[in-house]
Amino acid sequence: MNIIEEIELYSNLVDNKLMDIINNKDDYTSQIYEAMKYSLFTGGKRLRPIMTIKSFELFSNKIEKVLPFALAIEMIHTYSLIHDDLPCMDNDDFRRGKPTSHRVYGEAMAILAGDGLLNLAFETMSNFIYSNSESVEDFRRNIRAMKEISAYSGCRGMIGGQVLDLMGSSDNMDEEKLIYMYSSKTAALIMASLVSGAIVSGASEDEINKVKDFGLYLGLAYQIKDDLLDYKQDQSIDKFTYLKFHSLDEAEEQVKEYSRNAINALESLDNRDISFLKNLANYLINRVV
Amino acid sequence: MNIIEEIELYSNLVDNKLMDIINNKDDYTSQIYEAMKYSLFTGGKRLRPIMTIKSFELFSNKIEKVLPFALAIEMIHTYSLIHDDLPCMDNDDFRRGKPTSHRVYGEAMAILAGDGLLNLAFETMSNFIYSNSESVEDFRRNIRAMKEISAYSGCRGMIGGQVLDLMGSSDNMDEEKLIYMYSSKTAALIMASLVSGAIVSGASEDEINKVKDFGLYLGLAYQIKDDLLDYKQDQSIDKFTYLKFHSLDEAEEQVKEYSRNAINALESLDNRDISFLKNLANYLINRVV
Repeated sequence: MNIIEEIELYSNLVDNKLMDIINNKDDYTSQIYEAMKYSLFTGGKRLRPIMTIKSFELFSNKIEKVLPFALAIEMIHTYSLIHDDLPCMDNDDFRRGKPTSHRVYGEAMAILAGDGLLNLAFETMSNFIYSNSESVEDFRRNIRAMKEISAYSGCRGMIGGQVLDLMGSSDNMDEEKLIYMYSSKTAALIMASLVSGAIVSGASEDEINKVKDFGLYLGLAYQIKDDLLDYKQDQSIDKFTYLKFHSLDEAEEQVKEYSRNAINALESLDNRDISFLKNLANYLINRVV
Repeated sequence: MNIIEEIELYSNLVDNKLMDIINNKDDYTSQIYEAMKYSLFTGGKRLRPIMTIKSFELFSNKIEKVLPFALAIEMIHTYSLIHDDLPCMDNDDFRRGKPTSHRVYGEAMAILAGDGLLNLAFETMSNFIYSNSESVEDFRRNIRAMKEISAYSGCRGMIGGQVLDLMGSSDNMDEEKLIYMYSSKTAALIMASLVSGAIVSGASEDEINKVKDFGLYLGLAYQIKDDLLDYKQDQSIDKFTYLKFHSLDEAEEQVKEYSRNAINALESLDNRDISFLKNLANYLINRVV
């Protein structure tokens, strides 16, 4: 199986589990469930939940122990896209070739669908932890995973990165701040995905840290790669990116350096089957669209 | 001490604890912390967190065990107000005499400040549960409180009620649906406040249910009272309320009946000092503004 086939396999699993949660029988609230479902199923590759599952599988098996966290992260990712696309934010009418939530359901419902997904992420984790933890150790690992996810998705993580992106201009942005923005806006949720999987699996602190470093460097490489791809597609867009500070060659070189750092962090894990995550990193960094 | 003085006493405690969490030293994310703080401190009476604390105090002491849940509920309440006030929702320029978040910080930041507060609510609870639970019993109670809060604030609770409010029109609204909307939009977060306090205190299932009934009926009485006060203030507003189905006298009578149900639920608790919650209910139901 090549990496694309393997991604698809796990992606189908994630899709099925998400569908179980989002399928709603209640007439009164069917509209918001429909809106949440619409955005959850617009052809995302489920990279983040797959990272959670695969990070867990580095150290353990029985992936049903980690699935609710993986699903929660996909819900958080989806809510952030819905809100980012709104007219007052990035004002995007299409995402992955389909009309964005506010184009289909209106702005008010798009905001509520985003709120609903963020809430549902924590509801999903809380329900699972409550019903599936038996020992103090179980509880501690599960809550720690949720705690880390909440931190990475919050104001010191993803939301904070979005704020910097919103407020960023040439007057107030320097390279240090840009990298901080990338590490929070993009890398934080990737770190959340990987770290939560490792925590739930019972990995050691040292192992958790290595997985976290992998996520940080992968996230940074991914974001600068994105800058390069966006630039190649349309050079007229005046966005604040890594290319404000560096040439194309320097950016390409930086992607490679971050990628090497990511793979090094992964390879420093002893006796673990890192092949999938390594292939995934290479796939993401070498993509052409 | 009368009820207003007692509310103020607890309200100051809640204010101080919220300030501890929201005061931010980080330059990069100071803007969103400022926006969240602005909306958290616009003169709210802190009724919901006070209900959480007082529900806890019916059965236990050491309120530091319940404070993070109380604060989380105030954050959830505040995020819902920020998002409700947005131009595409209720389009309110003022709340409690002060400009709303989007008037001060712009729509994009208001949306992010709302997202930030919802996320921070779960971050606050997760951090507390992780660091302050010792036994399986501790963990179970704490997570159950968070689980209940997430359910009451989610798509089957507060957000669902907001959706019904948004989509409601004379074509599709009947009295049963209106009461469902009131129980989710308004009563749900009051129930969350009371139920979470009781759960963390170690109350029995029977006691938790009684406190929950108190919250439901109090919430319904509160909402219909609100309809009456809004109508008396401005009869030109064409909103979909209880008064679409009933006369003013019938509505007043219904407020009284729900209030009696609320107090009855409270009085069915044996050997508990219910005086504060009873006074609070009477204060809320008899208010004139």
